Amino acid sequence: MSQMHPAAAEGVSPIRREHDAVFILDQRRLPFEEVWLTCRTAEDVRRAIAEMAIRGAPAIGVAAAFGLALGARQLPPVSFAAMFQALAHDMAQARPTAVNLAWATDRMRRIAANALANPHLDHAARLSALDAEAQAIRDEDLAMNHAIGRHGAALVPRFAARKTRILTHCNTGSLATAGWGTALGVIRSANAEAPVAVFADETRPYLQGARLTAWELVRDGIDVTLIADGAAGHLIARGEIDLVVVGADRIAANGDTANKIGTFTLAVLCAHHAVPFYVAAPTSTVDLATPDGAAIPIEERPAREVLEVFGQPIAPAGVKVRNPSFDVTPGGLIAGIVTERGVARAPYRESLRAMLVDTAPGLV
Amino acid sequence: MSQMHPAAAEGVSPIRREHDAVFILDQRRLPFEEVWLTCRTAEDVRRAIAEMAIRGAPAIGVAAAFGLALGARQLPPVSFAAMFQALAHDMAQARPTAVNLAWATDRMRRIAANALANPHLDHAARLSALDAEAQAIRDEDLAMNHAIGRHGAALVPRFAARKTRILTHCNTGSLATAGWGTALGVIRSANAEAPVAVFADETRPYLQGARLTAWELVRDGIDVTLIADGAAGHLIARGEIDLVVVGADRIAANGDTANKIGTFTLAVLCAHHAVPFYVAAPTSTVDLATPDGAAIPIEERPAREVLEVFGQPIAPAGVKVRNPSFDVTPGGLIAGIVTERGVARAPYRESLRAMLVDTAPGLV
Repeated sequence: MSQMHPAAAEGVSPIRREHDAVFILDQRRLPFEEVWLTCRTAEDVRRAIAEMAIRGAPAIGVAAAFGLALGARQLPPVSFAAMFQALAHDMAQARPTAVNLAWATDRMRRIAANALANPHLDHAARLSALDAEAQAIRDEDLAMNHAIGRHGAALVPRFAARKTRILTHCNTGSLATAGWGTALGVIRSANAEAPVAVFADETRPYLQGARLTAWELVRDGIDVTLIADGAAGHLIARGEIDLVVVGADRIAANGDTANKIGTFTLAVLCAHHAVPFYVAAPTSTVDLATPDGAAIPIEERPAREVLEVFGQPIAPAGVKVRNPSFDVTPGGLIAGIVTERGVARAPYRESLRAMLVDTAPGLV
Repeated sequence: MSQMHPAAAEGVSPIRREHDAVFILDQRRLPFEEVWLTCRTAEDVRRAIAEMAIRGAPAIGVAAAFGLALGARQLPPVSFAAMFQALAHDMAQARPTAVNLAWATDRMRRIAANALANPHLDHAARLSALDAEAQAIRDEDLAMNHAIGRHGAALVPRFAARKTRILTHCNTGSLATAGWGTALGVIRSANAEAPVAVFADETRPYLQGARLTAWELVRDGIDVTLIADGAAGHLIARGEIDLVVVGADRIAANGDTANKIGTFTLAVLCAHHAVPFYVAAPTSTVDLATPDGAAIPIEERPAREVLEVFGQPIAPAGVKVRNPSFDVTPGGLIAGIVTERGVARAPYRESLRAMLVDTAPGLV
């Protein structure tokens, strides 16, 4: 992929693997310091995930896989099978909700089990198989994001006299994935064809837009303007936004989409002004077992995230807080769901099922 | 009024006048420090308004009037007429969007002109007339807010089994006015009848909700829950908000209402979910000379407000910022405009004109 997409354009990949270490970009320090954590053991990687030095469901999956490939090298060959299972079990517990984490550790477990069951493989070959699988998880994620970007870029309207203006929310970029990004991958792909102007919601309370999306895009030389979340409506009403594209944490069978708090509001604003609102996510985010948005549990995060900014209090003592971390956007407000396999359109119950079942029966 | 409404229930009035000074509660330091600025000149007051030590359209009007009454005392009697006009002109420019500022300075200008035209008034009497007018602007504002509260409280639905849940935005409380508040005055009046549950948007970038509304309501023992701006849509969609009431910086002849950035988004969310959305403001906020929202200038505030929180950077260097301080809510999204004279209903071009022209022809 690196020849097709030079490193600078990928954005910063938040995970690098070397033979005896995994390097993780500490996103808690961004955008002010670019600090790379050196993880020498699987436990170091597990802790980086648990403590949110790295976040974003796809990025967590890739980090876990690299961590397990690294950790495998430190296990004694004689008790490898049991100890690798224990390592994988611990890694899968690092965050309770990220589905990619379980999915990536399961892939690594299967490779280990298959390698152990194969009498023709010696220990070194087993370790190589795990290295290769972790690298495959990483490369597949990157390839999917490029595919999402390609399908999404085709949806971006173009204007002779000016840049297309695209609004996004939270961070769905190279930092949240193996590289390129999902919704931000669509923006990168569009920008590679012809420069676009990005508007980034700051995304309170955790400020992923201000801290991470702005940092990524400034770094890559992409035109980015930061706004308060409450300013999106004003810009949309004034005709200053041509389309909105966001990521997804879970997509139900009917297209209802859970994503970072504030996403639903953007979708309602877009519907009110006939501005296209797109969701961009890999098909692994689609959960056909969840019939609709009402079945998606919404995590309430600690009050502290609302009451403080970087540890600085912003509100008086004694005030109560509600801090829902996600909201649900009804499929009816979504112009299209952009995946690595193409763009699903309403009615989503049919289009999503067709996309998953018809093209990859093994995934359902 | 103080006998009818004890001081504690009024909330903190942010402006006090003494003979040779105007004291302004520095709202930039709230909720952590209660610091009073001592303004010894009209220019001190103008700067306090421009730098947002005091904010809120009615409070700005009261401060400007007190500032001009104070400044008048420092002008030489011989060139009083021209110099007072210059002072009033400067004061009116301190903030561009709020119509109360122009309205209050115009009242003071008229008093000065009338006093100068009256051969029976000496200079001391002129100054007293200006003092009296400023005090009248203040007292009228407080009385109007009580009337707004009374009319608004009658609109609040009640439930046998639970508190009514009212969402508000920015700060429209005693801090934004001479006391009691406009939208928050409606909430205070409703709460005085039977306790309500208030949800306060934090109101980025300037955090008036987190800093000021939460502070006022906690201080007065009113049930208040703070949320990120992006969480309002989630609560409204879940049926957890019974009505929304906000203030106004300027109301055009057709009911289009300029208010703090983020207000328009709430109105769209309310329309989408059939939740009543009310505006509460004195009739002095209605500007019949402004035909509609498109004619209202929208102040763009410094990028720093978005890039920093209490001086703490939250975004990378090099990112551009848009920071519109207000947005315009079309009259069509407003269930009613609550003023001291009653509740105007759509079509607003007729109801607002009738409210202003029929009951107080001198105001138009």
